[in-house]
Amino acid sequence: MRLSNIKQNNKETTKMDIKYELVEKRKEKPDENNLGFGNYFTDHMFIMDYTEGKGWHDARIVPYGPLSIDPAMMVLHYAQETFEGLKAYRNEKGEILLFRPEMNAKRMINSNKRICMPGVPEDMFVEAVEKLVKCEKDWVPAKEETSLYIRPFVFASESSVGVHPAKTYKFIIILSPVGAYYPEGVNPVKIWVEDEYVRAVKGGTGFTKCGGNYAASIAAQVKAEENGYTQVLWLDGVHRKYVEEVGTMNAMFVIDGKVVTAALDGSVLPGVTRDSIIHILKDWGMEVEERDLSIDELMDAARSGKLTEAFGTGTAAVISPIGELCYKGEAVEINGFKTGELTQKLYDTLTGIQWGKIEDKFGWTRKIDL
Amino acid sequence: MRLSNIKQNNKETTKMDIKYELVEKRKEKPDENNLGFGNYFTDHMFIMDYTEGKGWHDARIVPYGPLSIDPAMMVLHYAQETFEGLKAYRNEKGEILLFRPEMNAKRMINSNKRICMPGVPEDMFVEAVEKLVKCEKDWVPAKEETSLYIRPFVFASESSVGVHPAKTYKFIIILSPVGAYYPEGVNPVKIWVEDEYVRAVKGGTGFTKCGGNYAASIAAQVKAEENGYTQVLWLDGVHRKYVEEVGTMNAMFVIDGKVVTAALDGSVLPGVTRDSIIHILKDWGMEVEERDLSIDELMDAARSGKLTEAFGTGTAAVISPIGELCYKGEAVEINGFKTGELTQKLYDTLTGIQWGKIEDKFGWTRKIDL
Repeated sequence: MRLSNIKQNNKETTKMDIKYELVEKRKEKPDENNLGFGNYFTDHMFIMDYTEGKGWHDARIVPYGPLSIDPAMMVLHYAQETFEGLKAYRNEKGEILLFRPEMNAKRMINSNKRICMPGVPEDMFVEAVEKLVKCEKDWVPAKEETSLYIRPFVFASESSVGVHPAKTYKFIIILSPVGAYYPEGVNPVKIWVEDEYVRAVKGGTGFTKCGGNYAASIAAQVKAEENGYTQVLWLDGVHRKYVEEVGTMNAMFVIDGKVVTAALDGSVLPGVTRDSIIHILKDWGMEVEERDLSIDELMDAARSGKLTEAFGTGTAAVISPIGELCYKGEAVEINGFKTGELTQKLYDTLTGIQWGKIEDKFGWTRKIDL
Repeated sequence: MRLSNIKQNNKETTKMDIKYELVEKRKEKPDENNLGFGNYFTDHMFIMDYTEGKGWHDARIVPYGPLSIDPAMMVLHYAQETFEGLKAYRNEKGEILLFRPEMNAKRMINSNKRICMPGVPEDMFVEAVEKLVKCEKDWVPAKEETSLYIRPFVFASESSVGVHPAKTYKFIIILSPVGAYYPEGVNPVKIWVEDEYVRAVKGGTGFTKCGGNYAASIAAQVKAEENGYTQVLWLDGVHRKYVEEVGTMNAMFVIDGKVVTAALDGSVLPGVTRDSIIHILKDWGMEVEERDLSIDELMDAARSGKLTEAFGTGTAAVISPIGELCYKGEAVEINGFKTGELTQKLYDTLTGIQWGKIEDKFGWTRKIDL
């Protein structure tokens, strides 16, 4: 790949030479009323290869379709793989907005470093996302609360049965138009506090979006569902005591009028939604505590009514209110199992910014140059 | 797949209906003097599919070659994947022996359960290995200390961007003729005691051979190599104190004439070589302690000379003697950086059994019916 460095807005920007191989006939678009999540993929995908000593090369946008993978390819054996998740939103003017894609780019660099994979430079990541979404612009749905889910991922493509950092990788982006996460509006969920399985431990990979974290998490999710709960609340792996995340989201708790969430100290994912919510709360003059929160303190606060609201934050659902916690057989209800006022206001504000309905005073949205 | 249950040796055995699609012309075999590890793959592979509600089906032996994988296939994103490693050995009569394949089958069932994947029944696993090795019998090398490495693996083959147990999986076996792990004989290695990165924690996946464990381990391995060491010694993730494994092997320490190794309590891999070594040691009347061993006790024992030998155990290397430990900047030598007498005797005994040179009083080897 030829790269030309151009100056733009006083920032060094890498302009990629992306080759296009486009489909002759585009697929029919699905009904925007029944998109669901991840049921449809668009006409094209972005692919770029990495070779040790050569760096990233051969950026291309090609028809979406199967990859040819050697059965000894390391990703199938040693899970050297990371991913990201973000969305493109269509505003009322028909423009397409990205939400803080540079945050995903930076996080993937950190994820890849931990898993000993090369990072995709931030500018290349964002440009690849923009160019692919531009190519697939007709796939960004217009119906309220729908969006185009963007899934960038990197994996080890070397064929080898020895455990070592691979010498070759692939960076791929695929796109899927998705429906409203809550077709019937935001409603609270029941959460199972998990005390058997552990998601992450300091010194491990909890702060990354590596595949292994997700494979390891499924057993607890299945167990929660078997017990009639929607998601799990993870406790830390050392003391089995401090609250970390809820399912695949960050967790926030409104206690005595302050918002408490786990600090980013190695075992918690640095969520883009988490960061945005904290900024909005502080902008509103609210106090946010990023600190250790023990399950005992949390259950006490729930019993005494000091815990007035609780919610998960993540790209897919944005905000997911928590209506009940069950820990060691004791279930406590939060806010009468109703979505709290602050929770709803945060949801409305953040989705308002994302879909371009309200002013973006933080400069988070990024309009795609169509 | 049609299955017929037949009685054999008073044990219910599942006989698979394996379909064969064989190559027209077999590849040329590589030079047995320069096999290395994982550089060559044989002519065929075994594949079997799993579909929710239908179970395992379509067992087949087909030409080794690339798989067609959808870019949304879950294994590339959420690492729902496990593997095993075992070997086929050619004895002096030209027969082919497997070593305790049922142990690998059982372990994969346990690994898959933790990662919420269906297990491959033990009989099917062993039969698949036997039939594929039989099909590739000319690939089992004859030169001393060479073998045919067998790599069974299972992965989630459903295409989905949602995190959940997949509805479809693939079980594949590939084979690679491999050279002597130590072409110049067994020699001690230098070990870096890792106190920053963590491999596993109770409640996690340490006892499984899931891909995520290996992806997470690479950073420490790279760090050890940068510091001039060959492998890492892992400490437990909770106290950062108790010795767990060495690299991708189990670790054993001869202290005051007793052999000490970490107990199998969730964060340590139940190695087949580990189990075999323990049986041999006990058969010799030696005391084996499976218990917590703190790095402080180990370093004290090394300094005082009570630690007379140390070694890693695993399928690839069988036994890997440890000549030096470095912990927090202090390096201690073990047995004058020479392979200990017990270490060598264990290596000779176990490899003697594996290659059919000495009597297999434990009934571990399994001759393939050619």
